[in-house]
Amino acid sequence: MRIYDIIDKKRHSLPLTKEEIEFAINGYMNEDIADYQMSALLMAICINGMNDEETLNLTDAMLKSGKALDLSCFDNLSVDKHSTGGVGDKTTLIVAPIVASLGLKVAKMSGRGLGFTGGTIDKLESLGKFSTSLSQSKFLNQVDRIGVCVIGQSDSLVPADKKLYALRDVTATVESIPLIASSIMSKKLASGAKSIVLDIKIGNGAFMKDLESGIALANAMIKIGNGFGRNVRCVLTNMNVPLGFAVGNSLEVYEAIQALSGKGEKRLLEIARALSSNMVSMGLGIDNEKAYQMVDEAISSGRALIKLKEWVIAQGGDVKYINNPELLLRAKHKEEYVAKESGYISSISARGVGIASMLLGAGRVKKTDKIDHLAGIVLEKSYGDYVEKGKVIATLYSQDKGLFPGSRSILTNAITYSQAKPDDEKLIFDIIS
Amino acid sequence: MRIYDIIDKKRHSLPLTKEEIEFAINGYMNEDIADYQMSALLMAICINGMNDEETLNLTDAMLKSGKALDLSCFDNLSVDKHSTGGVGDKTTLIVAPIVASLGLKVAKMSGRGLGFTGGTIDKLESLGKFSTSLSQSKFLNQVDRIGVCVIGQSDSLVPADKKLYALRDVTATVESIPLIASSIMSKKLASGAKSIVLDIKIGNGAFMKDLESGIALANAMIKIGNGFGRNVRCVLTNMNVPLGFAVGNSLEVYEAIQALSGKGEKRLLEIARALSSNMVSMGLGIDNEKAYQMVDEAISSGRALIKLKEWVIAQGGDVKYINNPELLLRAKHKEEYVAKESGYISSISARGVGIASMLLGAGRVKKTDKIDHLAGIVLEKSYGDYVEKGKVIATLYSQDKGLFPGSRSILTNAITYSQAKPDDEKLIFDIIS
Repeated sequence: MRIYDIIDKKRHSLPLTKEEIEFAINGYMNEDIADYQMSALLMAICINGMNDEETLNLTDAMLKSGKALDLSCFDNLSVDKHSTGGVGDKTTLIVAPIVASLGLKVAKMSGRGLGFTGGTIDKLESLGKFSTSLSQSKFLNQVDRIGVCVIGQSDSLVPADKKLYALRDVTATVESIPLIASSIMSKKLASGAKSIVLDIKIGNGAFMKDLESGIALANAMIKIGNGFGRNVRCVLTNMNVPLGFAVGNSLEVYEAIQALSGKGEKRLLEIARALSSNMVSMGLGIDNEKAYQMVDEAISSGRALIKLKEWVIAQGGDVKYINNPELLLRAKHKEEYVAKESGYISSISARGVGIASMLLGAGRVKKTDKIDHLAGIVLEKSYGDYVEKGKVIATLYSQDKGLFPGSRSILTNAITYSQAKPDDEKLIFDIIS
Repeated sequence: MRIYDIIDKKRHSLPLTKEEIEFAINGYMNEDIADYQMSALLMAICINGMNDEETLNLTDAMLKSGKALDLSCFDNLSVDKHSTGGVGDKTTLIVAPIVASLGLKVAKMSGRGLGFTGGTIDKLESLGKFSTSLSQSKFLNQVDRIGVCVIGQSDSLVPADKKLYALRDVTATVESIPLIASSIMSKKLASGAKSIVLDIKIGNGAFMKDLESGIALANAMIKIGNGFGRNVRCVLTNMNVPLGFAVGNSLEVYEAIQALSGKGEKRLLEIARALSSNMVSMGLGIDNEKAYQMVDEAISSGRALIKLKEWVIAQGGDVKYINNPELLLRAKHKEEYVAKESGYISSISARGVGIASMLLGAGRVKKTDKIDHLAGIVLEKSYGDYVEKGKVIATLYSQDKGLFPGSRSILTNAITYSQAKPDDEKLIFDIIS
């Protein structure tokens, strides 16, 4: 077998066999196949696609490049959740304690933020000495004991994904349903959960720009999951507008605590409930309506909030932030942002708010950048709200005063106003299983 | 400008601007752009194509990577000839002296053989101490004095082509009309001739497998040439069957001498006449019929053969081979090859004969391989001839006896027989300008 022939085959839009895909991935990991050959193959895949069988085989080959976690000790109770990435998406911080309080087991590996999108690990690290790097035995032990543990993704999880992603990132070969699906699913499969809920974000603040490609991605990931004997449900959600009011790490933790205290923003709560109830429904094998009731009860009873405290304590975080969440809004500098016009907010771009928050120090331009956990933006008004010119609609937080002007001008470009009240935007487009 | 965006644009089938193409080629030559980015771009070009303007701009950017030869001192008399590569193609050795004897100026840079295809430089080096590496002033001086000089391509001619081709060769991105056209034409333009005849070989022994892609390549190259103010004609010729009877370096020189002595094989002579007369017609600005007459007269009068001798002497070769061409058939070992059946030869694959000759030592598997100038195959019968089982139809030549069995079995697979006389195969499919 020669990589040349494999590239040539995909170049001519022919399906690759399981052996050819394994040869390519293994050879790339062994360095028998050069970056320039793999990038040519990836480009051919981006343009000519892969069928379901190829995508399954690609996922399998990637999965085999590392060591999968065995969660069989938790039977069907192990559940996982993944978001394709958005702005203001703090749902893991809400969903994980809810479902753990209902007896499910959340052994989750998360990522860090990059560009205008955030990452759960950064958010958790706002909570004092919260440790996101634990040994496997400590990790599983905590899940067994309290039902939830979230750590950073180890490099050994799916090394092929790490190496391929780095190459895709510099060769314009990121955007591709089979490549995205196999990248996400290889990591989810390696993380070991029996049931997986995928939150596929769609809109200007997300990777997927339109519903059609979101549905295609959902179907590809469901087929992969089912092929490996996992339950998978995909919730397709709107990411044209930031999720909730807070964008920025400690600010989002604050908002998550509010949500678990029954004071959550409506849209944020709706998505968190949808994700949680689907996890509960799959994990416990019950119908969705019953699962919704249990989720609502977990919040209203305060049990989910108690689970969050247990969780933070277990990973060495400081529980004072949960007890006094306003401590999370302690950035050295704050600046109010006022409406530029009177009228309804007719658009507030998730991408724009994400970049404005990143520029305050909350995000990374490059992977190696340091972030300011206290920086970010808290909106007071959002899409569809009526605002008056000169009245405060947001507060900017940063440790560095000099970052305000740049952020402010991006924010101004991210917001438009109209005299007529805009139509409600759909929040959850679809749930596919 | 970022290479990422350029790759992404071509990935989505959008045309690239002149500036983008220059940025990509210059950046690749400066090593600002990595191999893995260029190979992704090349794959996107292979699949999504390039329009005429892009192809012209690509050629221009490649051309600018090196130093073009200035042949303006020869006015419109400078002519060049290029073959896309075939088996038994010794036409340069016939055409160059013919047209030089008619007053044209042939300042030609040629390549070496690789795989089953041969190269003019290797053939010339069969002639004793024939020097294929001359300084530019010696090169031009010889052209001025005797009308012909052929040397090896220098690395500085079109460095971008050299670097790109090496990458294409290992990433399955060779086969692409705009990439092939810009590769060939950048070198032809850099070589400086005013008029260019391109022999586009089509068939199993050539790079182009079908007439349709041959015509597309011809049109692309003519547009590039005209865009740079050059006259270009393309002769599309059959390469299903080896050209002439000899395949292998010194054996082909022998056959070229025979052709210039008026004893040439009919098909070989027909192509050599077509190529020569088109060069004469463009170079002297006369009609094709008159040019044909002049070419025939150059052969029949013996002037072309005299020009060959002058040429060989000028470059330090040994003229004894021209005077006694049978000295070129002096390989240590010869073996006769007999027909396996009685009947008409209904196919004799150019590719198969090329590989059989390569296996005797006449060709290179890798660029760095040494070749045996005396090795090869001389056919006595070819396509359409009646043969009797057990009668000799070819002679194999090699310095290494051990190479005969492998070559013989390839040759056996390359020949089929039939009881009915097969239809004549068209030799010249088309001439396009």
